[in-house]
Amino acid sequence: MTDAILPEARLLDLATRALVAGGMRADDASAAARVLVLADLFGLRTHGISRVAQYLERVRLDGIDARAEVQVERPAPGLVSVNGANGIGPLVGMRALEAALEAARNVGVAAAFVRGSNHFGPIMPYAYLAAQEGFASFIASNATTTIAPWGGRATRLGNNPLGIGVPNPGGDPVLLDIAMSVAARAKIRRALARGEALPQGWAADAEGKPTTDPKAALSGFLLPVGGHKGYGLAIMVDLLAGLLSGAAYLTHVKSWVDEPGVAQDLGHVFVLIDATKLGPADWLAERMRDFAAIIHDTPAADPAQPVRLPGEMELAAMARQRREGVAVAAEDLAALEALAAG
Amino acid sequence: MTDAILPEARLLDLATRALVAGGMRADDASAAARVLVLADLFGLRTHGISRVAQYLERVRLDGIDARAEVQVERPAPGLVSVNGANGIGPLVGMRALEAALEAARNVGVAAAFVRGSNHFGPIMPYAYLAAQEGFASFIASNATTTIAPWGGRATRLGNNPLGIGVPNPGGDPVLLDIAMSVAARAKIRRALARGEALPQGWAADAEGKPTTDPKAALSGFLLPVGGHKGYGLAIMVDLLAGLLSGAAYLTHVKSWVDEPGVAQDLGHVFVLIDATKLGPADWLAERMRDFAAIIHDTPAADPAQPVRLPGEMELAAMARQRREGVAVAAEDLAALEALAAG
Repeated sequence: MTDAILPEARLLDLATRALVAGGMRADDASAAARVLVLADLFGLRTHGISRVAQYLERVRLDGIDARAEVQVERPAPGLVSVNGANGIGPLVGMRALEAALEAARNVGVAAAFVRGSNHFGPIMPYAYLAAQEGFASFIASNATTTIAPWGGRATRLGNNPLGIGVPNPGGDPVLLDIAMSVAARAKIRRALARGEALPQGWAADAEGKPTTDPKAALSGFLLPVGGHKGYGLAIMVDLLAGLLSGAAYLTHVKSWVDEPGVAQDLGHVFVLIDATKLGPADWLAERMRDFAAIIHDTPAADPAQPVRLPGEMELAAMARQRREGVAVAAEDLAALEALAAG
Repeated sequence: MTDAILPEARLLDLATRALVAGGMRADDASAAARVLVLADLFGLRTHGISRVAQYLERVRLDGIDARAEVQVERPAPGLVSVNGANGIGPLVGMRALEAALEAARNVGVAAAFVRGSNHFGPIMPYAYLAAQEGFASFIASNATTTIAPWGGRATRLGNNPLGIGVPNPGGDPVLLDIAMSVAARAKIRRALARGEALPQGWAADAEGKPTTDPKAALSGFLLPVGGHKGYGLAIMVDLLAGLLSGAAYLTHVKSWVDEPGVAQDLGHVFVLIDATKLGPADWLAERMRDFAAIIHDTPAADPAQPVRLPGEMELAAMARQRREGVAVAAEDLAALEALAAG
C-alpha cells in the first residue's frame, strides 16, 4: 500500500468536510477531526482518519447519531457527567475533555464520566491536548469484549485502553497510551493471512488454553498483559469508565463489528489535574528535564535502540510530520476524499 | 515458621504500642498501625506488622523521624499537597488519605500529592478505607529502584505500586493493588535459597539479557510486566507520585536497604472520587452486583479455580480473619511484643 503525504491543515479540512458530509454539524466535525488527525500525526494510523469511513458507515446504519447533542452536567464542582447521546466518539471525547478542563481550572482537579459514547480514537491526542494546557491526565475507555478474565475461558471484557499524561512546560510531555491485551486482534489477523504462528503469550483458544495458532486464537480470546495484573487493570478501567459513568460494561457493550447498527453505549473517564497549581513552570520544567536525562542516559541493551520515554516516538513523529506533511495510506485518503465530496 | 493467631483489636493495640515505644505519638501510631493490621487482615503479610521492626530500626538510625509533623496544604479546592517530613510511611499515607477525603467530599474529587515520605505499606488498605466511605480511588507510590527502563540495562525506577478501588454500597468493593515488576525481589531471593531456576520473563542479568539464574538476576534487575507497557506505567507512576509531588524520583530515591539511615523522600499520589455524587446507592449496588455476576459466571479454564475479581481473595481473607483471628508469623509477633515492651 502506498502512502499519500499532505499538510496537517489540509488533512484536518478534508476529515472535517467528510464528517460534515456524513451529517455532522461543522463545529462538531471540526472537534472530532482534530482527534483523528492528531492520531495520524502521532503515527497511530489505525486510529486516525482511516476511521472516518467506519464511523460514517455506522451513521448510515443508524448505529451512531451524527447529529447527537452531547449533554454535560456538573454533579459537583469537580465532577462532570457527560451523556454522549450516541454521537461520534471523538466528538464526545472532545466535549468531555473540554468540560473536564474547565472544571479542573476552577478546583485544581476534575473527573468526567462519559456514557452513551462510541470508539473515541486513541487516548494520546486527549492526553496531549491536556498537557499542552498544563494538565496531567488519566484517561480510559471500555471497549468491545475481546479478553477473558484471568483463569476464565470466555471473553468478558475489552482491551480497555488507559492513558496517563504529564505536562512539561516548554518541552515534550510524557504520554502513555496502552491497551490491556498483549497484542491487538489486527496483528493476529495479519499472522493468519501470512500463515505465521503467534508468539507465545498473545492468545488462548476457545478452551482457554494458550495457543500460537492464529485461527484458534481468533475463535478464542486475547490474553491480558502481565496475566492477572493486566486483567485487573482492564477490570478497573471498565468499572471507572463503564460502570461508574452509567454506560454499558463487560458483555453489555455491543460489538461494532458484529452489530454496527446498534448503539454501543461505551464509557470513558477523564481525570485532569492542573499541574500549574503544584509549582512554578520553571520548577516543573527543570524536574522534567532531569527526569528525561536520567532515563535517556540509561545504557541500552542494544546500542542501536536508545532508551525512550513513553510517547517519545509519537511526539517525534508529530514534529516531523508537522514539518514534512502527514503520511496516510493512499486508499484511506481516497476514501476520505470520496466521503468529503459527498 | 509457625503462625500465631490473635484478634484484630489485640494486634492493632500491640502494633500501636510498639510504634509508641519507638517514639511515635499515640494518635500517629494508631493511624499507622491501622494500615499495617489491614494488610495482615488481607493476608499481605510482607507489608503488615512485620514491617514495624524495619521502620523502627530506621528510626533508630535517624533514617525516619518518628515524631515528624506531617504538613498539609491546599493549593486549590481539590488539590492537597502533603509534606510527610520524613515520617513513618503509613502515618504519612493516612494523613494524605484523610485530607484527600475531606477535599473530595467538598468538590467531588481530589488529588493529594505527597513528598517526604517512606514505604507506606500496601495500597489496598487505603483503597479499602476510601471505598468504605463511598469513594473510588487511584493511589500510587514510587519506590527504591529495582527495574530497568525497557531496552535499558541498569536500574532506574522502582516497581512503583499502583492501586485502583471502586466502592460497592453494602457489598464488597473491587480493589486492585499491583506492582510493576513481574515478580518481587523477595521471590528471587527465595529461588536462590532453594537452588531453583526462575521462570522466564522475571529478570535480566547485569547486561540486560533475560536470565533464569536467580544469582544473575539479583545482580541485574527485575523486568516490568508486559514489557514496554509495565515500564510505561512505572514511569507514569513516578512522574505523578514522585516528580509532580516534589519528592525524589528515579535514581534520586534512596534505598532503605543500602542506606537505611538516609531519608528516602518517597512520593505518593491519592486521587479520590466521591461515587455517592454519581448516582444513588441502590443504582450503584445493583450495577456492582451485575458486574460481579458476569465475571463470576465466566467458565473457568480450571474448574477448581473459579474466576475472581481483583481484591476478592484479600477481602475473603479479611472476613475470615475478623471472625477467626489474624494470622501472623510467630517470630514477627514475638518481635512486635518485644518492641511494645520497650
